[in-house]
Amino acid sequence: MATVTIRDVAALAGVSPATVSRVLNADPRVGAPLRERVHVAVEKLGYRPNSQARSLRTRATRVLGLIITDIQNPFFTALARGVEDAASERDYSVVLANSDESLDKEQRYLEVAAAERMAGVILAPSSTAHSRIGTLTERGIPVVAIDRRLRSAEVDSVSVNNQKAAKDAVGHLISAGCRRIAMITGPSGASTATGRLSGYRSALREAGIEPDPALEIRGDYRIEGGRAAVRAVLALPERPDGLFVGNNLMMVGALNALADTGVRFPADILLAGFDEMSWAGFAPPITLVEQPSYEIGRRATELLLRRVAGEVFPAQRIVLPARLRIRGSTHRVA
Amino acid sequence: MATVTIRDVAALAGVSPATVSRVLNADPRVGAPLRERVHVAVEKLGYRPNSQARSLRTRATRVLGLIITDIQNPFFTALARGVEDAASERDYSVVLANSDESLDKEQRYLEVAAAERMAGVILAPSSTAHSRIGTLTERGIPVVAIDRRLRSAEVDSVSVNNQKAAKDAVGHLISAGCRRIAMITGPSGASTATGRLSGYRSALREAGIEPDPALEIRGDYRIEGGRAAVRAVLALPERPDGLFVGNNLMMVGALNALADTGVRFPADILLAGFDEMSWAGFAPPITLVEQPSYEIGRRATELLLRRVAGEVFPAQRIVLPARLRIRGSTHRVA
Repeated sequence: MATVTIRDVAALAGVSPATVSRVLNADPRVGAPLRERVHVAVEKLGYRPNSQARSLRTRATRVLGLIITDIQNPFFTALARGVEDAASERDYSVVLANSDESLDKEQRYLEVAAAERMAGVILAPSSTAHSRIGTLTERGIPVVAIDRRLRSAEVDSVSVNNQKAAKDAVGHLISAGCRRIAMITGPSGASTATGRLSGYRSALREAGIEPDPALEIRGDYRIEGGRAAVRAVLALPERPDGLFVGNNLMMVGALNALADTGVRFPADILLAGFDEMSWAGFAPPITLVEQPSYEIGRRATELLLRRVAGEVFPAQRIVLPARLRIRGSTHRVA
Repeated sequence: MATVTIRDVAALAGVSPATVSRVLNADPRVGAPLRERVHVAVEKLGYRPNSQARSLRTRATRVLGLIITDIQNPFFTALARGVEDAASERDYSVVLANSDESLDKEQRYLEVAAAERMAGVILAPSSTAHSRIGTLTERGIPVVAIDRRLRSAEVDSVSVNNQKAAKDAVGHLISAGCRRIAMITGPSGASTATGRLSGYRSALREAGIEPDPALEIRGDYRIEGGRAAVRAVLALPERPDGLFVGNNLMMVGALNALADTGVRFPADILLAGFDEMSWAGFAPPITLVEQPSYEIGRRATELLLRRVAGEVFPAQRIVLPARLRIRGSTHRVA
C-alpha cells in the first residue's frame, strides 16, 4: 500500500517536486501548460497533499473566514447569508470581517485567519491587482475569491459576467432611445470595474456609437465618489440623455446629485445601475443589474469546502449570470 | 501574597461557596438580595474567578460568537457591523450565525460556540422565555443578550426601551387624528413584543381611548404573518383609521396586504412601524421607530469584552433610546 508522493507526481509530470508544490500552492509564477501537466498527474495518481499539509489541516478549526468590504452593503449581506447557510449545513462556522476596501485591514484579517487556523477563507479582494494571500496559501489554507478576481494567485473564484451584464444594461438604455450615455465606473484596481466599463463600451459600439472618453467618469464605488462623478457629468456642456452607474453605493451618491441639481429621471435623463439596493422587495424604481449574491456565497463555500476536504483540482473560475431588472427609471416619458 | 478564594467571598457574604459559584454563573435561582451580597463581597475582596475558570479562559480563542435571527434584516445588519467594529478594535474576530428564530438552530450554535471555545457570545434570543444558555455559562463563557431579554439567566443585556418607543409612535398617530388604531404585535415569547404592545396600550389610555382587543392582532415578526394580520384588520366591520406594525418584516407583509386590497396610505389609513427597512438612506416614506442598532452591537461587544477580560460585576441591563422618524405615511391628507 505505497503512498503516492509529491516525487511520483513530479516524475510523471516531468517537472521538479518544487514545481508541483508551487502549483498546489496556487503560485501564479507557474505557467498554464506546466500547471495543467501537474494537475493531470495529480489526478492520474490520486495524489493527496502530503502528511505535513494534512496534519496542518487536521489542526484547523471548523471555522471559515469571510472577508468582505462591508456587511451593510446589500450585495454582501445576501452573499454572507449564502456562505453561512452552506457552511452550517456542513457544521462549519463563519467568521465575518469587513475590510472597508482597505488593503491594510484586509491583510490584518488574513493574518488573523492564519493565526486562528481557520479551515479556509472566502475573500472579496479589496484590489484585483494588489491583494496578496500568501499568508494563507503558505500554510495550506485554501482561498476562494468572490466578486473580484485576484491577479497574484491562481485560486478558485466565483463572480458574475460583469462585461455581459453591463452590456445588457447599456443596450437597454440604447433601445430606450439614449444616444449620449455616461458611465460612472469603479476604481481601476477592481476587475469588476474593468469588466463593466468594457461592457458599456461594447454596447455602444454595437449600436454604432463611438465611446466618448469625456462620458467615462471614474468613481470609487462609494457614495461620495458617485455624487461627485454625477455632478461632473451634469456639468458637461452637452448633458447626457442616459446614465449608467457602476455600483449601488455610487448610485446612492448619483441620486443625491440628481436631487441636488433638480435633474429628474426618467423625464430629464434615463438611469440604470449595477447591484441591488433593497431589502425584502423594497426596491427604489430604478433599473438595476441584480447579481445572484446569495448564490455566489453558496457556490464559493461549496468550492472552498471541497478544498478543505483535501480535494485537488485545477483552479476553478465560476461565472454566474446576472439579471437586468427593468424599472421606471428607464421608461422614457412620452 | 495569599490569593482570595471563593471561600473568602462566601465567608464575607455569609453564604455557601456553592451560592457564590451560582451567582458568578448567572444562575437565576439565586434571589436579588443574595446576589447583591455576593457581588459586594467579590468587589471588596477583589476576587477573580478561580484558576480553573482562568485556565479555561486562557484556552479560549480570540473569537466572539454573534447569534442573530437573520443577517439580511437591516436591524441585524447594522448591529453586526457594530459588533465587528468593536471586536476588531480589540483584535477579536466575530463568528456569525443566523438562527432564523428557531430554538433548535440557536441551541446548535450555542453548542458550536462552546466546542470552538469562543471567548464570549452575543445572543439575540429567539425566545425570551425558552432560550437556554447553560451550555455556555457552565463553561464560564460569558453571554450578552441583545434585542430581547432572557428569562432563564441573569446576564448582561443591551436593548431599547420598546415600551416608550411604541408609546411615542402611537401617540404620534393619535396627534395626527387617529382614534381607531390597530396594532400588529409580535410573538408572545418575545420581550420586544410585550414591551411594544404595552406602549401601544398606554398611549391609547393616556388619550382617553380604551384599548380594543379586536384591534390587537398577533403576528409572528415575519412577512407572511404581517400580511395575514393586516388582511384580518382590514376585514373588520369598522376599518381602523391608523395602523401600528410591530417590526419591519411584518411591515413588508402589511404593505403587500394594503396593495392587495387597494387601501392607500396616508389617504385611507395612517401607517407607522417599528425598525428600519432601508439602506444608505433609502427609506420608503413610512414613519418608523428607528433603533440605534449599530450602537446596540457596539455596546454589547464592549460589555462582553469586559467579562472576557475577567471583570466581575452585577449583570448590566443597558437600555438605549430609540427615535421616531416621521415620514409621509402619517401625514393626514387634508
